[in-house]
Amino acid sequence: MEQVLSDNNLVISVDAMGGDNSPRVVVEGINLAHKNNPDIKFLMFGDEAKVSEEMKRFPQMKEYCTLTNAPESVKNEDKPSQVIRNKNTSMYMAIDAVRKGDAKAVISAGNTGALMAISKMILKTIQRIHRPAICTNIPHKNGMCVMLDLGANTECSAVNLAEFAIIGNILAKHTLGIERPRIALLNIGAEEMKGREEIHQAAKMIKSTHLDLNFIGYIEPHQIGEGYADVVVSDGFTGNIALKTMEGTARLITGLLKTSIKKSIWAKIGLPFLLPVVWTLKKSMDPRKYNGAMFVGLNGLSVKSHGGTDALGFSYAVDNASKLVRQDFVQTIRDEIEHVDLDELSQDILYDVY
Amino acid sequence: MEQVLSDNNLVISVDAMGGDNSPRVVVEGINLAHKNNPDIKFLMFGDEAKVSEEMKRFPQMKEYCTLTNAPESVKNEDKPSQVIRNKNTSMYMAIDAVRKGDAKAVISAGNTGALMAISKMILKTIQRIHRPAICTNIPHKNGMCVMLDLGANTECSAVNLAEFAIIGNILAKHTLGIERPRIALLNIGAEEMKGREEIHQAAKMIKSTHLDLNFIGYIEPHQIGEGYADVVVSDGFTGNIALKTMEGTARLITGLLKTSIKKSIWAKIGLPFLLPVVWTLKKSMDPRKYNGAMFVGLNGLSVKSHGGTDALGFSYAVDNASKLVRQDFVQTIRDEIEHVDLDELSQDILYDVY
Repeated sequence: MEQVLSDNNLVISVDAMGGDNSPRVVVEGINLAHKNNPDIKFLMFGDEAKVSEEMKRFPQMKEYCTLTNAPESVKNEDKPSQVIRNKNTSMYMAIDAVRKGDAKAVISAGNTGALMAISKMILKTIQRIHRPAICTNIPHKNGMCVMLDLGANTECSAVNLAEFAIIGNILAKHTLGIERPRIALLNIGAEEMKGREEIHQAAKMIKSTHLDLNFIGYIEPHQIGEGYADVVVSDGFTGNIALKTMEGTARLITGLLKTSIKKSIWAKIGLPFLLPVVWTLKKSMDPRKYNGAMFVGLNGLSVKSHGGTDALGFSYAVDNASKLVRQDFVQTIRDEIEHVDLDELSQDILYDVY
Repeated sequence: MEQVLSDNNLVISVDAMGGDNSPRVVVEGINLAHKNNPDIKFLMFGDEAKVSEEMKRFPQMKEYCTLTNAPESVKNEDKPSQVIRNKNTSMYMAIDAVRKGDAKAVISAGNTGALMAISKMILKTIQRIHRPAICTNIPHKNGMCVMLDLGANTECSAVNLAEFAIIGNILAKHTLGIERPRIALLNIGAEEMKGREEIHQAAKMIKSTHLDLNFIGYIEPHQIGEGYADVVVSDGFTGNIALKTMEGTARLITGLLKTSIKKSIWAKIGLPFLLPVVWTLKKSMDPRKYNGAMFVGLNGLSVKSHGGTDALGFSYAVDNASKLVRQDFVQTIRDEIEHVDLDELSQDILYDVY
């Protein structure tokens, strides 16, 4: 392996074999991402013959990409428990590059469960953080907000939720450039006693002046799109349900719209006039723009690109990751979490009840 | 009070003071509902002066409506614990009419928490049912499906979820006319081990041949709109999150569409051609059509109309309720639940683990 890299702060490692159309889409995606991030170097891991064949189409790629052969790859149907100890997969090797300090972040469009399991095992959770979370940016009326956890933890304690609030706060600052992000807990009502006990406890913790967060209280799902909050915190089960419901509702509406347009001659006549509007809307809702779910709370950043995305989508995932890498995001979390003892805070709040 | 009613199987009691524009909207709604259900009689409870003033606009109403004065009414900001024992409110009196056997169902557009609390206290849960659920019909690509629980129970055991499956099965038969409804549990993945433990246990119970349900497994939120299931079962927290996310996403998309149309001259030119399509879509997504969340599992049917709905929306809630009343829905649940012992079934499944 020829080492072309110097400053490992700007190195991202890539699982070239993950996703539906790998390694083609991955290589094309990196080529696109390079245009926005000419200073970022990439460590690619994958089937050398296949990947280098794809890379031939972009001769300059050699200047910012180092390819290492990985004899195996993780399949979509593989169970995390099966692949977690196989050190020969492109996914394992790409994550291991972050552990070794060769790269600051890893991106894969492969098996989500495997990526989380291997990342947790190799990179380990940041000291004092109990659980990593899956985070993403989603669109609202006036911009974007950070949502977490989206599925890493199906059940969460108040301490977990409070940690997610701290992580989300840093994410919103770094990825959205918001100075004092408004943080809200996802719940089924605005009143203090609505929802589950762990949410009430978490609210008390996040409110604590000790954490110095801009906590605005509970948010109900229909308020997310209104842009009331910059960070929406929930357990992974609830976050996953909300995210997939958004996806499904958007698909249902556009599907119904298409069906009714097909049935109407008048609509077909009028449609060309509306195409610019359709394009604008498509662009602002384009899921590729929000591609890249970040696994946060580990010693290193692990980013999951959508398995079915195209090159543009993959490049957005790289963009997102590189933003965080540039700002040494993981170190920021370490620094911030050092100042708080959530377990103690949680004890204080429990005592408060008696 | 003049008694104009005979067959109490077709009597619905109404809280005339609930909702944002009561009693006007309620009176207008009943007038509309009467056109579709000329055989249904109504018992109205409310401020006699105000309600009878509104009723003057529909002189024929006296023939199918009996008005009883209620000295007080439940406010939106009232806590359930405050109003639960006040027998002088229009809501209490309307629910009590069902307990007394004067009516088969009660409809209110008032305070949801109060309606649930009073309904539970007065009507009591059907024997062998552990918890009532809030249910509604929601649209999908090819029709409608039943969703429950939508917020009555923030935490649910496997037994609760299995009961909701039984209730949902009957609801889908009665309200949607589906002979053998496809029942699914809402979850974050299709694989057996995804999601929470109580969901796995519930799946085992619902699968049991003893219940004779058409269980199709887990459904992810984005599949609801595809029409994969006729009954979608979840705990009340998750169901509420999913329902409000649908609402918010629909609002976000239509909002973005409106904003971009406003900005484009071309779009304004083309829009008139598309109006029929917009109307069709609006009609099929019209929340008024799905108005009427049903509190099911009690000795009597309690229906919550949206507080901000108009007369048409209120009349749909009455339509929904009357469908169930006609089919003696509560008795059907009693009969079906009599044949199953869910606690025993749950024990069997627990033993199964060892």
